[in-house]
Amino acid sequence: MPDPLILVTNDDGIYSKGIFALQQAVAQLGKTVVVAPETEKSAVGHAITLSDPIRIKELERENGFSGYAVAGTPADCVKLAIKVILDRKPDLVVSGINRGANIGMGLLYSGTVSAATEAIILGVPGLAISLDAWVSPDYSYAAEVANRFVRVALDKGIDEGIALNINVPKMSNGKAKGVRFTRQGTSNYEERFDRRVDPRRRVYYWMDGELVSNEDDSHVDDVALREGYVSVTPLHYNLTSESSLEVMKEWEELVNIET
Amino acid sequence: MPDPLILVTNDDGIYSKGIFALQQAVAQLGKTVVVAPETEKSAVGHAITLSDPIRIKELERENGFSGYAVAGTPADCVKLAIKVILDRKPDLVVSGINRGANIGMGLLYSGTVSAATEAIILGVPGLAISLDAWVSPDYSYAAEVANRFVRVALDKGIDEGIALNINVPKMSNGKAKGVRFTRQGTSNYEERFDRRVDPRRRVYYWMDGELVSNEDDSHVDDVALREGYVSVTPLHYNLTSESSLEVMKEWEELVNIET
Repeated sequence: MPDPLILVTNDDGIYSKGIFALQQAVAQLGKTVVVAPETEKSAVGHAITLSDPIRIKELERENGFSGYAVAGTPADCVKLAIKVILDRKPDLVVSGINRGANIGMGLLYSGTVSAATEAIILGVPGLAISLDAWVSPDYSYAAEVANRFVRVALDKGIDEGIALNINVPKMSNGKAKGVRFTRQGTSNYEERFDRRVDPRRRVYYWMDGELVSNEDDSHVDDVALREGYVSVTPLHYNLTSESSLEVMKEWEELVNIET
Repeated sequence: MPDPLILVTNDDGIYSKGIFALQQAVAQLGKTVVVAPETEKSAVGHAITLSDPIRIKELERENGFSGYAVAGTPADCVKLAIKVILDRKPDLVVSGINRGANIGMGLLYSGTVSAATEAIILGVPGLAISLDAWVSPDYSYAAEVANRFVRVALDKGIDEGIALNINVPKMSNGKAKGVRFTRQGTSNYEERFDRRVDPRRRVYYWMDGELVSNEDDSHVDDVALREGYVSVTPLHYNLTSESSLEVMKEWEELVNIET
């Protein structure tokens, strides 16, 4: 058996500290190849690049970190890695360590999480890991958590079609209280748009926002994180609302179209 | 009661034929305001613009089509419309008419669908409508379908937190066989990357692909469409896999971290 092949990616870009910490944390568990955006691609969600050419640059950082910088999105990186760069299918795709949590509604905007869901679309288990810290984040503990999960994922496997969304709390003593398996919650950024005028007197807007949570169930992602636990949410890529499918039956007569 | 306020958006851009057909189709059902990307933003998924300023231009096309061209993504458009442009919350957000179907895994990449899910995040019912035609699409029948659904959505309401993803088949006689309420399927683009060399001898890649479906259940989106029915899938924005949450319990001991 060859060593497990681990594809490492992120959305903060290949030069970020978080991806370096992640690669170093899992390097002993297999062969790692890094394929990540050349520049920051936060909040690009599951965007892919169809209307522009995509370029790839080989790259090496210190201490065995080597890979490819891609002029594209995290989902592009996973596709390109699996379809073009790697000579065999990876055993696992890990994405992170993201600067800032990826929870609640925020999952829909997250490039980090989209890399992991892109992996499962391509038939490879995916794991996204984020640290709930923005200012001078210290990735050392989150890297230990990543190592632990990657070890179990490689050993035990993850259900087919499932990606794990892992969030690590920022704790004053450096360690979480434990692990909780959670649901995606409804916490969200309450956006505002800052209206400004440029030097040429044209109006522009900056998006900004504040996280708002109305959750109190301890097994919802943002609550677990807030209470000091590592939050782990199993994600799939199906958006169908089964409960609503039932209700929609009432629509059948209303919308039926003469044929 | 004031007229219903209908926000019209898309991902093909504000100058596309599809959005014009959609606005015209629903103009009699309320007051329409168009807020859409200035240029094509297909496959941007749920991307939002955080690191760049966003500009808005007022715009008028013929026959009462007026609105705002936004230098941003479909999700940006919905946020800006609701938070900045409109003076009250719209009663409905309609997105489309998209050139090409939005089905299966493709939903994750779709800007059209993301505009509708962004609407529900902001507490407004959302409806995405796409036509399964790429070459010289004729939007007239899809526009009738849009009118029918918008009428029912305004009259009856849509479940809270639910967006409808509507796909209209391309039929030789111009009309569908009827309507089916469906689940999101697993049809997907089997991508390949076309490797090319530019005039300066640098390598680049173009992403391309072909739709592959392994579905045969008539109540799955791509099958309904292929069989000549309008496919309607109720979507929510929760990616949690409930079935996997059960299975993950086995992981608890394996991953638990000393505290």
